[in-house]
Amino acid sequence: MDEFIVNNINQIRAKIKKFSDAGKIIGFVPTMGNLHAGHISLINKAYSECDKVIVSIFINPKQFNDDNDFLSYPKTLESDINILKNHNVSYLFYPDIKDIYPEGFTCDISFSSINNKLCAIDREGHFNGVGLILIKLFNIIKPNKVYFGLKDYQQYVLVKNLVSFLNYDIDVVSQDIIREKSGLALSSRNNLLSDNARLNIAPKLYYILQDIKKVINDNQDIDLINLILNYKEKLLRYGFSKIDYLDILDNNLDNYNFKISKNARIFVAAIIENVRLIDNIEL
Amino acid sequence: MDEFIVNNINQIRAKIKKFSDAGKIIGFVPTMGNLHAGHISLINKAYSECDKVIVSIFINPKQFNDDNDFLSYPKTLESDINILKNHNVSYLFYPDIKDIYPEGFTCDISFSSINNKLCAIDREGHFNGVGLILIKLFNIIKPNKVYFGLKDYQQYVLVKNLVSFLNYDIDVVSQDIIREKSGLALSSRNNLLSDNARLNIAPKLYYILQDIKKVINDNQDIDLINLILNYKEKLLRYGFSKIDYLDILDNNLDNYNFKISKNARIFVAAIIENVRLIDNIEL
Repeated sequence: MDEFIVNNINQIRAKIKKFSDAGKIIGFVPTMGNLHAGHISLINKAYSECDKVIVSIFINPKQFNDDNDFLSYPKTLESDINILKNHNVSYLFYPDIKDIYPEGFTCDISFSSINNKLCAIDREGHFNGVGLILIKLFNIIKPNKVYFGLKDYQQYVLVKNLVSFLNYDIDVVSQDIIREKSGLALSSRNNLLSDNARLNIAPKLYYILQDIKKVINDNQDIDLINLILNYKEKLLRYGFSKIDYLDILDNNLDNYNFKISKNARIFVAAIIENVRLIDNIEL
Repeated sequence: MDEFIVNNINQIRAKIKKFSDAGKIIGFVPTMGNLHAGHISLINKAYSECDKVIVSIFINPKQFNDDNDFLSYPKTLESDINILKNHNVSYLFYPDIKDIYPEGFTCDISFSSINNKLCAIDREGHFNGVGLILIKLFNIIKPNKVYFGLKDYQQYVLVKNLVSFLNYDIDVVSQDIIREKSGLALSSRNNLLSDNARLNIAPKLYYILQDIKKVINDNQDIDLINLILNYKEKLLRYGFSKIDYLDILDNNLDNYNFKISKNARIFVAAIIENVRLIDNIEL
């Protein structure tokens, strides 16, 4: 019987080789599990563009800079498997941590231009860990296309650049953020919030992003530094305990300059009930 | 007409895809040019095991820690092309430096256990540069098998570990050192030596390696530290200007211990006429 869940690296390789030998286009959605409608939108997009879709679930310790964050990351394997089967995913690659990071030799990867802004500042080593696991997964799965949600916009930019710089022959496809009815961007971490925080406070992130966008579009000459300061204070008054950043950057994460480009985004990361939430919108 | 020399990354990809779509086994020999009988032995070995052989010539600036060494590295493209054509190589991949290292985003790679011994000590960053270019070349060429000579033994160990750790589905094949009649290991750098150094002094490297091997095999209880010191002094007396290392390590480059293992090698790196030569033999 052809098992749906594949733990073994050589086994997933062999199964995917059958697909690619038959000329199938392979789509790949790497995840850390606890699947929600955001992941499902990635799988659906992959299916609209590929013949076969592979999903991985691996909570990658190297991309967590905080042990508690790693240990408390929500795990819902049984419901994840049901979701994947219901969406016609070919295989779930669910490797063991000791096979991904065996003892002995290791290598580390680091980046020139992604590591000094936004989430990289508060999550030291996070993107190096993301880069390493993706190189490993790309080498195992050998996908034609990979799918990433824009909630983790900096991760998307990193993957685009990494794939291009390391000469991987892979299309990196983005998918818009999926939101709860309240406007809150879907995230596995939302499950860690109390009802009050999730329904009444966390949605303010999206609310203020839209507000800032409106203010800037109404007045291109506004003092951005003061604007940002005011909205940071607003978030604290709403009940966030800390604002890691509220920033406007170019689409490629360079500094924003009204005169150079209108391709910019507003980014926010803020903490509530010890849970770090992020969001961003196009300006 | 199907060009033999391919500069363009997408073009070499397309040509190799035709081979792999036809089920051909692809062998790959990465070089920095100035081809000699050592490279030819790699190509011949590749042909004995693969259907198609691709050779790259790229003098990788990131693996040189010394600008003069980079600039003086011997370049003999015309004769290299003749050698490759005469040995039935399918394509020479000869990329432009600006296509391999475009401006903007870069990433760096570093290693846990290779970087604190032998050549890594005197050539800071060398193996990180080797690792990066190989990841890029592996992603472009997508070979089934890659070929490395054992003169650069530490590089061979690095590549074996790197391929395994990053989950590349590539066989790393080694080839014994090819030597001049004098015993001197073939190296492009030999061309930088005067006749006297090349014929009378440089061959002493191999000579003392064999001598040490004999002494140790005759007396397993010998004081290794003193033995090594004596032979370093001998090399200086022969005319070498500096000994970077003379060392005995396990096959996997761990410290040698008579009691643990007999799988050991003797390694030497020494400088003559500002040229750094390396050699090694099995103990």
